[in-house]
Amino acid sequence: MTTVTIVGAGLMGTATAYPLSDNGHEVRLVGTHLDGDIITSCRDKHYHPRLKRPLPPRVRPYYVEELAEAMDGADIILSGVNSLGVHWIGKTLGPYLKPGHLVIAITKGLEATANGDLMILPDVLYSELPVDIRDQVRLAAVGGPCIAGELAGRRHSCVVFGCRDRDAVEKLASTFRTAYYHVWATTDLVGLEYGAAFKNAYTLGVGMVGGLLEKAGGPDEAGAQMHNAAAAVFAQACTEIERLLEIVGATRTFAYGLPGAGDLYVTSTGGRTVRLGHLLGAGHRYADARQILSGETLEAAEIIRMMGVALPGLTERGILSPDELPLFRALVDILVHGHPAQLPFDRFFGGQGRV
Amino acid sequence: MTTVTIVGAGLMGTATAYPLSDNGHEVRLVGTHLDGDIITSCRDKHYHPRLKRPLPPRVRPYYVEELAEAMDGADIILSGVNSLGVHWIGKTLGPYLKPGHLVIAITKGLEATANGDLMILPDVLYSELPVDIRDQVRLAAVGGPCIAGELAGRRHSCVVFGCRDRDAVEKLASTFRTAYYHVWATTDLVGLEYGAAFKNAYTLGVGMVGGLLEKAGGPDEAGAQMHNAAAAVFAQACTEIERLLEIVGATRTFAYGLPGAGDLYVTSTGGRTVRLGHLLGAGHRYADARQILSGETLEAAEIIRMMGVALPGLTERGILSPDELPLFRALVDILVHGHPAQLPFDRFFGGQGRV
Repeated sequence: MTTVTIVGAGLMGTATAYPLSDNGHEVRLVGTHLDGDIITSCRDKHYHPRLKRPLPPRVRPYYVEELAEAMDGADIILSGVNSLGVHWIGKTLGPYLKPGHLVIAITKGLEATANGDLMILPDVLYSELPVDIRDQVRLAAVGGPCIAGELAGRRHSCVVFGCRDRDAVEKLASTFRTAYYHVWATTDLVGLEYGAAFKNAYTLGVGMVGGLLEKAGGPDEAGAQMHNAAAAVFAQACTEIERLLEIVGATRTFAYGLPGAGDLYVTSTGGRTVRLGHLLGAGHRYADARQILSGETLEAAEIIRMMGVALPGLTERGILSPDELPLFRALVDILVHGHPAQLPFDRFFGGQGRV
Repeated sequence: MTTVTIVGAGLMGTATAYPLSDNGHEVRLVGTHLDGDIITSCRDKHYHPRLKRPLPPRVRPYYVEELAEAMDGADIILSGVNSLGVHWIGKTLGPYLKPGHLVIAITKGLEATANGDLMILPDVLYSELPVDIRDQVRLAAVGGPCIAGELAGRRHSCVVFGCRDRDAVEKLASTFRTAYYHVWATTDLVGLEYGAAFKNAYTLGVGMVGGLLEKAGGPDEAGAQMHNAAAAVFAQACTEIERLLEIVGATRTFAYGLPGAGDLYVTSTGGRTVRLGHLLGAGHRYADARQILSGETLEAAEIIRMMGVALPGLTERGILSPDELPLFRALVDILVHGHPAQLPFDRFFGGQGRV
């Protein structure tokens, strides 16, 4: 039996408690300072109000003030906070970490450093840890298509755990893996995180098509929608993710596996990134759209802004040719430079002229 | 100006008349013996009852008995019949074909020969042509995500034309290409057709997840569906299509481009293949499901049956290892051997044990 401390009692963090509990592990669920009401409900009624489900029986809820107690004797720590909370969780966990701890984060995203380089979030977390402990723990992350409510409902879900250390990722995978939570393991942590981040950005592109349909007046008199256009954007997204993974030296098959095509498929069914894309497609500027979606974390927009900074440099240095990544470049133009929402179909797949 | 004769006045054949007409070509639409009522409506009201739209102004409708007239002076012939009509159209067109004719088929599928080999449909069509003409014409096909009603509604649609002859495919692409019908060209006709056929089979797999959800009682009390499972099936499908294309020596990037991921995305939104998958997932045997869908052409089922014959041989000869293509093998087991509809998630992506 392993003791796992989950920090962050939102949807996804809490959902991982179900397979862990089913595997007989001791699970401690710690709310952040934003999760006080959730923890109160979990304590009083053993019910998670956002998941709309009872907690699994073996899960013990903790307020953030009880973190020291929740960390005492933990073997594995799961970070359930979103990308904005990564610095906080690094600083907060630091004092409690001990050599040999495994820390796995469910957040997807990238962060730009002061000089414009992109950092994967486990490395951001690493940078916030005390110097004497950071190399004594193993940092991991989760990728792949996983709606939290379905995992908590014990529906089949297939994900990829990534960690640079092979033993650590195998240990993590076997701890979480159940008959319904299917876990693959990779040592290409960087590729997994880049794939997830890029996928997020392209979800906005697929979502944009719905907004373009709205702007065109919706389905026409014979009911024609824009599935063909969405499918083309989807395929171009997979194609560009493959190229981006190649550029960063990552596992290219992620592009059409769980972290790429699989995750893009599930996030394209809905959620805040699709809503943002929809608003942009319908003609809203990013500033307006952001206001309409106030309160939502817009990780896709952050990735697109960061790539907007990185792309010209990559192109100038000859790493990318100017006709590569036309969809990503269009997303940058629309979101960062305020261009009208139009998709450059003719420039997809290397341009139509090619055989 | 080019004269294009479309044979088959169903949804997809007729839809191609819109870009052709917009490009100023002379378009002749010939109904088969099944399309008599459609041609009558097209003649009397210039309205296509299945597309629910007026025909483009430049399109002239013909009954099948007027084929000779419709073929007189044609430069390009488009075959708009489904896979069951390929032999018929080869036999029917044969006497009217002249050296230099370009024949493009919109049907997707494969056919098994007497000795179990798989043939692409343009080659089946070829085999039905008179010996003295078959090498004097160029045969081509269309792949990629294209719902007919959207093409007819002039919504952005991205497709790939394939023909072994580069000049022919370029001529075809430039004849059909408009500002909304985006056409790529490839000389890998075989890869394009195999990709489309495999995609059809996997659409059944994605559709099956909806049936599994129904069998499980639908969304649970907290609303959990099975999007995660569908996404995993989708990603595994792309991964297996890539492997299958490798085996047949085809363009592997089709797996995550328009013919693979793109077309799988759009066909997974609905249609007869998804309905068949749904019925199988919900617990119906194939024979029952087929009866429920009576009258529908089930190309995906044909592909799966053919692969059910081909897979053991490929595995015995060492071309495929037994742990490869677990999803396709499951589809064969369910559809051909009557196994219960279960998906082997743990065997996806090379099996969970691998890093």
